[in-house]
Amino acid sequence: MTHPSIPPALATALAYHDAWTSQDLDRAMTYIARDISCYAPGAQISGAGQYRDFLGGFMTQLTAVETVAAFGDDTTAVLFYYPHTANTSDAPTAECFTVADGKITRSVLVFDRPSFAPPQR
Amino acid sequence: MTHPSIPPALATALAYHDAWTSQDLDRAMTYIARDISCYAPGAQISGAGQYRDFLGGFMTQLTAVETVAAFGDDTTAVLFYYPHTANTSDAPTAECFTVADGKITRSVLVFDRPSFAPPQR
Repeated sequence: MTHPSIPPALATALAYHDAWTSQDLDRAMTYIARDISCYAPGAQISGAGQYRDFLGGFMTQLTAVETVAAFGDDTTAVLFYYPHTANTSDAPTAECFTVADGKITRSVLVFDRPSFAPPQR
Repeated sequence: MTHPSIPPALATALAYHDAWTSQDLDRAMTYIARDISCYAPGAQISGAGQYRDFLGGFMTQLTAVETVAAFGDDTTAVLFYYPHTANTSDAPTAECFTVADGKITRSVLVFDRPSFAPPQR
């Protein structure tokens, strides 16, 4: 299912996004470089092992996803989406990926932690 | 300073971004639709008047900006950048703009509020 007009970094980011939002952690990890660096709110993740733990943890909270924007070029891609969890469905998340040879080598993730927190009792 | 290869929504978003990060609130507002809807962490802004207050407030905290990604098409643009403030220079912000006729009609802004908070005393 290749599409010649999709720039390479965007194609990788979309394939990765489809995999993890379909709860397919193994397939998602095929797009992650062994030495990935990921910067998330309050967390810095180094290497595919840590990344797998981080992504696997978030995947268990995901109930659905609404992707609203996806752009990229040869080396960089940006996704904008609303992850749906038990707590929220209207808090956006953005990711900026650096891609080389079909693998994500760097990811910067941005979301507002308070918007994803469980409701106050 | 037009560039024929820049898609229209991206051109508007970049012109807006350049204006507000240059502390030119009046110029920034020329790219904002009168009936703009803006969704930010913990805030929903309706209309250019509210938006001007919101943007003007944040501009006073901005000391510099590092823009790392900018993409768009005819109607949508996404920017990814690091606003520098007195408290932080390594917390990313992403914006997803909807643009019509050279004006931003909708903006979704995402940043992690705790990352921009003053340090705990």
